Amino acid sequence: MKQPLSEEKVFKDPVHNYIHVQDTIIWRLINTMEFQRLRRIRQLGTSYLTFHGAEHSRFSHSLGVYEITRRIISQFERSGYKDWIPEERLLTLCAALLHDLGHGPFSHSIEEAFEMDHEDWTCRIILEDTEITAILRDVAEDFPGKVASVISKTYEHEIVVNLVSGPLDADRMDYLLRDAYYTGVNYGTIDIDRILRMLRPYDGRVVVKESGMHAIEDYLMSRYQMYWQVYFHPVTRSSEIILRQILRRAKELVQQEYAFRFMIEPLSDLFSGEVTVAQYLLLDEALMQTAFMQWTLEEDDILSDLCSRFIHRKLYKYVEMEHLDSGTIDEIRRSFDGAGLRPDYDLEIDFPTDLPYDVFRPGDGFDSKQILLLDKYDQLREISEVSDIVRSISGIHRGRYHLYFPQDRLQKALPQLPPSIAEIFAK
Amino acid sequence: MKQPLSEEKVFKDPVHNYIHVQDTIIWRLINTMEFQRLRRIRQLGTSYLTFHGAEHSRFSHSLGVYEITRRIISQFERSGYKDWIPEERLLTLCAALLHDLGHGPFSHSIEEAFEMDHEDWTCRIILEDTEITAILRDVAEDFPGKVASVISKTYEHEIVVNLVSGPLDADRMDYLLRDAYYTGVNYGTIDIDRILRMLRPYDGRVVVKESGMHAIEDYLMSRYQMYWQVYFHPVTRSSEIILRQILRRAKELVQQEYAFRFMIEPLSDLFSGEVTVAQYLLLDEALMQTAFMQWTLEEDDILSDLCSRFIHRKLYKYVEMEHLDSGTIDEIRRSFDGAGLRPDYDLEIDFPTDLPYDVFRPGDGFDSKQILLLDKYDQLREISEVSDIVRSISGIHRGRYHLYFPQDRLQKALPQLPPSIAEIFAK
Amino acid sequence: MKQPLSEEKVFKDPVHNYIHVQDTIIWRLINTMEFQRLRRIRQLGTSYLTFHGAEHSRFSHSLGVYEITRRIISQFERSGYKDWIPEERLLTLCAALLHDLGHGPFSHSIEEAFEMDHEDWTCRIILEDTEITAILRDVAEDFPGKVASVISKTYEHEIVVNLVSGPLDADRMDYLLRDAYYTGVNYGTIDIDRILRMLRPYDGRVVVKESGMHAIEDYLMSRYQMYWQVYFHPVTRSSEIILRQILRRAKELVQQEYAFRFMIEPLSDLFSGEVTVAQYLLLDEALMQTAFMQWTLEEDDILSDLCSRFIHRKLYKYVEMEHLDSGTIDEIRRSFDGAGLRPDYDLEIDFPTDLPYDVFRPGDGFDSKQILLLDKYDQLREISEVSDIVRSISGIHRGRYHLYFPQDRLQKALPQLPPSIAEIFAK
Amino acid sequence: MKQPLSEEKVFKDPVHNYIHVQDTIIWRLINTMEFQRLRRIRQLGTSYLTFHGAEHSRFSHSLGVYEITRRIISQFERSGYKDWIPEERLLTLCAALLHDLGHGPFSHSIEEAFEMDHEDWTCRIILEDTEITAILRDVAEDFPGKVASVISKTYEHEIVVNLVSGPLDADRMDYLLRDAYYTGVNYGTIDIDRILRMLRPYDGRVVVKESGMHAIEDYLMSRYQMYWQVYFHPVTRSSEIILRQILRRAKELVQQEYAFRFMIEPLSDLFSGEVTVAQYLLLDEALMQTAFMQWTLEEDDILSDLCSRFIHRKLYKYVEMEHLDSGTIDEIRRSFDGAGLRPDYDLEIDFPTDLPYDVFRPGDGFDSKQILLLDKYDQLREISEVSDIVRSISGIHRGRYHLYFPQDRLQKALPQLPPSIAEIFAK
Repeated sequence: MKQPLSEEKVFKDPVHNYIHVQDTIIWRLINTMEFQRLRRIRQLGTSYLTFHGAEHSRFSHSLGVYEITRRIISQFERSGYKDWIPEERLLTLCAALLHDLGHGPFSHSIEEAFEMDHEDWTCRIILEDTEITAILRDVAEDFPGKVASVISKTYEHEIVVNLVSGPLDADRMDYLLRDAYYTGVNYGTIDIDRILRMLRPYDGRVVVKESGMHAIEDYLMSRYQMYWQVYFHPVTRSSEIILRQILRRAKELVQQEYAFRFMIEPLSDLFSGEVTVAQYLLLDEALMQTAFMQWTLEEDDILSDLCSRFIHRKLYKYVEMEHLDSGTIDEIRRSFDGAGLRPDYDLEIDFPTDLPYDVFRPGDGFDSKQILLLDKYDQLREISEVSDIVRSISGIHRGRYHLYFPQDRLQKALPQLPPSIAEIFAK
Repeated sequence: MKQPLSEEKVFKDPVHNYIHVQDTIIWRLINTMEFQRLRRIRQLGTSYLTFHGAEHSRFSHSLGVYEITRRIISQFERSGYKDWIPEERLLTLCAALLHDLGHGPFSHSIEEAFEMDHEDWTCRIILEDTEITAILRDVAEDFPGKVASVISKTYEHEIVVNLVSGPLDADRMDYLLRDAYYTGVNYGTIDIDRILRMLRPYDGRVVVKESGMHAIEDYLMSRYQMYWQVYFHPVTRSSEIILRQILRRAKELVQQEYAFRFMIEPLSDLFSGEVTVAQYLLLDEALMQTAFMQWTLEEDDILSDLCSRFIHRKLYKYVEMEHLDSGTIDEIRRSFDGAGLRPDYDLEIDFPTDLPYDVFRPGDGFDSKQILLLDKYDQLREISEVSDIVRSISGIHRGRYHLYFPQDRLQKALPQLPPSIAEIFAK
Repeated sequence: MKQPLSEEKVFKDPVHNYIHVQDTIIWRLINTMEFQRLRRIRQLGTSYLTFHGAEHSRFSHSLGVYEITRRIISQFERSGYKDWIPEERLLTLCAALLHDLGHGPFSHSIEEAFEMDHEDWTCRIILEDTEITAILRDVAEDFPGKVASVISKTYEHEIVVNLVSGPLDADRMDYLLRDAYYTGVNYGTIDIDRILRMLRPYDGRVVVKESGMHAIEDYLMSRYQMYWQVYFHPVTRSSEIILRQILRRAKELVQQEYAFRFMIEPLSDLFSGEVTVAQYLLLDEALMQTAFMQWTLEEDDILSDLCSRFIHRKLYKYVEMEHLDSGTIDEIRRSFDGAGLRPDYDLEIDFPTDLPYDVFRPGDGFDSKQILLLDKYDQLREISEVSDIVRSISGIHRGRYHLYFPQDRLQKALPQLPPSIAEIFAK
Repeated sequence: MKQPLSEEKVFKDPVHNYIHVQDTIIWRLINTMEFQRLRRIRQLGTSYLTFHGAEHSRFSHSLGVYEITRRIISQFERSGYKDWIPEERLLTLCAALLHDLGHGPFSHSIEEAFEMDHEDWTCRIILEDTEITAILRDVAEDFPGKVASVISKTYEHEIVVNLVSGPLDADRMDYLLRDAYYTGVNYGTIDIDRILRMLRPYDGRVVVKESGMHAIEDYLMSRYQMYWQVYFHPVTRSSEIILRQILRRAKELVQQEYAFRFMIEPLSDLFSGEVTVAQYLLLDEALMQTAFMQWTLEEDDILSDLCSRFIHRKLYKYVEMEHLDSGTIDEIRRSFDGAGLRPDYDLEIDFPTDLPYDVFRPGDGFDSKQILLLDKYDQLREISEVSDIVRSISGIHRGRYHLYFPQDRLQKALPQLPPSIAEIFAK
């Protein structure tokens, strides 16, 4: 069952041009209902409300991660590097392909609302009697377990784990390129061919040949720009806030035994907190969107208003503040309350932050998140030791407070707000 | 209300880089719930099952059509062509932006199944008391009617109609570029800057300066290739067939008063044939997909099987035949019946065809579908008179029969089929 | 000496991203003075006077041809096709790399003016005691001879010859892509990855898997468009005409023993007709341009005027004519003579023509210029039998007469020309 | 003479797609012999020896600078910004187009060798009786003087000077994009459309709307990467070193009254130090290359060896050193002398350095090199005050010593060198 396909199959992909499938197992995994489900989960959640082109799915991203991993391994094997274990090829490819299998609809928001973890779900889907499990078992009885252990980072051979989730893994490279392509933002363009050529398996991890340093600098800068331009875009954050408020409100209503106009399985199970793998697999963004659309007609004002905002894209506005202490926050909330606003729904405070690169801290030894350069004397050095630019940007910890609120409701309440508070929102 | 925005607004777009909005009316139209609904209708229907990147929406296409139209008009105005009527600018932009407003989920399949026409729906949404109507009325009481008449091609000034739906309209140019971008297929790359520079308003229609002939040749070839590579792709046709079968089966079941496990408004209205504008606006692909997903659990074997095939992408296989007469078709259907297959569902015959360009027929005068070249003596000539390449490909009417069938069911029935029929499907 | 490099070396290339060099021999060949000389010969001759970006050299094109060939062979070897001879890899790569080695400055013009043939020069440079010869001899004593025989199409294994110069050779693919990139014209964009995946070695030639037909259609159309948009561009033809007139005039002057202000070796040898390999290698476009620049100061009016036109880009204008018979030509020439113009220099008639694809002529058997498709039953068919589009464009033989002339001189002579002749040029 | 062209003319350009010419004056300037000469000067000097695609000329760059400037002005005029002076449009465009007119062959090297300044030459060509001067005078008698004063930064209206040579000028934007395109390196891709949209004329200079900050960050990072990846590439530095040595040696020989095999005007004038504008205009890279090629045959060993190295690309090798003091340098030079090497030619020490962005120094007021952001309250702030990333990289002053030497000669001398010195070069 490990045999190659009689003829290589390809998927046309705008980012990598072609995705090459050479193994029967990979081909069969792609054609399972569990993997096809990823077509119904967007890669960037609600970002399509900011960047209208960003409708791409986790299905296409997963194929991309697989393809990059395939190219890395193929380079390792062509070059015959001694630190790579050729027997691990299929395992690595399966783990790369399947690593996002457990993502739910609007993953990050749903994970937060229901205290779930997509990695756990990925492992459950791999291990618990699905089409995926059956195919993996065709390789060996313990193969599903191995794949799951790579994803949960407990597999014995570190190089495999590092390839699938390390600081230079295929996941990050694909999403930078893919998200840049579909949003149309050009900050994500990295020289992936050069990066791939510079990767070396070394002592259980993937490191970079020193002459590839500039390509890595560029990759880190791209990553930084994508975070601020795309992932943390305030309009996207606004839509995520509304989405989380919808889920919160619906949970409250379920607890209050509110009679929903529309509530079907497996959605009801999600709210009641008991979801089997089979039910989880029925969850997708189409269902969420349908529920939200139907809920625009619910009697509960809060829920129907939030759902209308989400579906018809009447999002919250925001103001930016450089500083904000908890005293001020309390004051705003109190004033909102006094002015007839609902502080729990009419105000959300957000402080997005990202470290462009986690610094090397002397004395720590090499950390699994660090990018290591391999020089011509076969010595490893953490990149910020060598690169001025990476050292400069390491530890930049920037951010501003964003206060989100419904402009229409706030406008009406303005006269009731104390001037010092009104002024904040009047900008 | 016709005033420009105080500051131009832009949308980041991967195809046109930026979409520029300069008019308050346009900005407000984009922010209506009716226009936002287009985010939930894919531009290419089920093509994402063939090209995984093709998840782009009619929302982004509509913005693209608007943008190209804006650029054409801007060029007309900069050059001061006497055949262009500057007063029609806003009307033309509104019609360009809104021309696809009435598309339903999986438009072409749903139109066929329910005998609807998206152009009618577009006009209804523009005319019947929606957010759109209200905004258009802010321009003038009769403005919604004017916009609708441009879309239904009855507006008095032909040049406006021709710009919005002529052989060189912005619609076609945007979809070629956009579909090529999102599928990743490079056949759709046309030199749009050059084409736009070569367009001239002339005697009520948009014509091309003769020196732009090669760019038009290239555009027609791209169009031809996109039809065969993307729009008529047999895997896409297979998914459309299954989609139409689902709709057909559900209609049959509704007529038989079958008790659906899952059936909600406005879906039920669609099947009962009475849909108001308000209900129509609730229809989207999320709802269809949710219904199909729920229907995978229906008791009716045919419906649940078809829905599983669609949702989990277990599509029909196909064989190609150069010739196929009605006698053979009858024979196949009879044999299928005899072998326990259901000819109405287990066999679909498809014959896709496209004319790369409709020929000039001498004596007909200029037809509205013809592309006309304007030479330096201000004479018009139909392009195939001048271009060898267009003349050569005009009237190519090619195509092959494709027979679609469920591979698993057919495999079992093979022994029961007469050898001459079995042989067709055994390839 | 056939050993691989200890580490693959790459050249950054805008068209193929990276050129990969894996063999010591290839690396050494690139670093010879004979191969480096190709940096000083432009790929597109005088086209840079029309498309200012087209300054790219035959050096970069040769690397590109090598790279495409390398990828084709690598695919053949990965797939283990039985019709490919793995032992011929290095030979094929060397021939691909070196096939343009003999091009002189402004090749086509110089070949015509001095009745030379670049293929002969390529073979001489390979065979006659150059750095190239020495390196090839390191492989085997008869290796230079083998490489030359591939280039002159007499090598025993047809598949090698066909790869280096067949209807689907790497030469054509690279120049379409490269010329499109550097001119900025987008007609040349072909899906090279797909074409390469579809090539098969079969019975001594490179054929295409039938499912690659559309990619080939697109390639032929691109080729056609590039011919008319770039290679036959009338402004380029005008500059070539002036270039040929310069060479013609200089030859006349050499025969008249005119005392040139500037004339150095190896230029003088070229005009006297006796050039050794060593001298030929000193010829480049820098020298030609320097000579032309110096000749702008020559006493001979014709030569200095032509050189000024070339260097300062004051080219001939042209008029287009659909029909032109030899009677009219004679009449024009006589009138020119009568009006004080010099018919030999003040008038050039050009009729560029190209067949988009050479048709299959029934009964001929397969011709070496034909593109053959391999169907799933392993049958070969000439592409125009299968493709409507290729059949349609086969045999299109279009063209118009272009009359080139110096606008300033003609303007002055106009009153002396008979009205019927004056009218032709007055447009 | 200020009239627009009857019909806009375009140049096809790979970087900006089309260069639009709308003014008769611009069209005529492009067609002068002085401007056409820029076709014979490469934009990146000897970089083509490192990046084979980098053969693009200052002609194409100059068109690009003109085009970007045209777009900026067009945006200023469309938006009606009060700080822009519409009457200065043509002046600004002429200065943008002509700003590089005075570059000589291999500009930076020649400027250093002959103590010339290309800006002076630009002004001389504009002012001293050339085709350019005549055309500019057609606008107004004092127009050539105005254009020259913009280029020499003395023109009265600062905004014009700032547009043509400020920290965000069209020159830098074009060269980043163009050099990235032709080398194939992707670090130079900046979102020029966004940057252009964000520029504002403000109080005599071009500033950036605050919301464009990220685009500027990206631009500065691109610039930084291009410096290290392309402009300071050690192989390019090696070729520049050899070029400068050639010029140095030739000067020495001229002073020694050496009888050159090949020496023609205007080259001889250059070496004798007296060059008129007319002679300067005859200088181009073709002449330099021809001279170098001829000099490979000179009797002087040093000159012929250097010229062979340059023409046949047998460049110097290099070693990198983090630290290098003058004592060590002296020691190396002495050892070289002792081992029969020529320290003046066999050793060159290079320390390339670039500041990614010049920091704001408190108390200095705004410096003409600083990039200023304009916030929504119409306040200006220097970018590094606002951008963490710019602040981080400001003042990075990195660099390593590179020691260049002829590998072949050094190899022979190695046994004669003291071990401590030999070791440096033996790596």
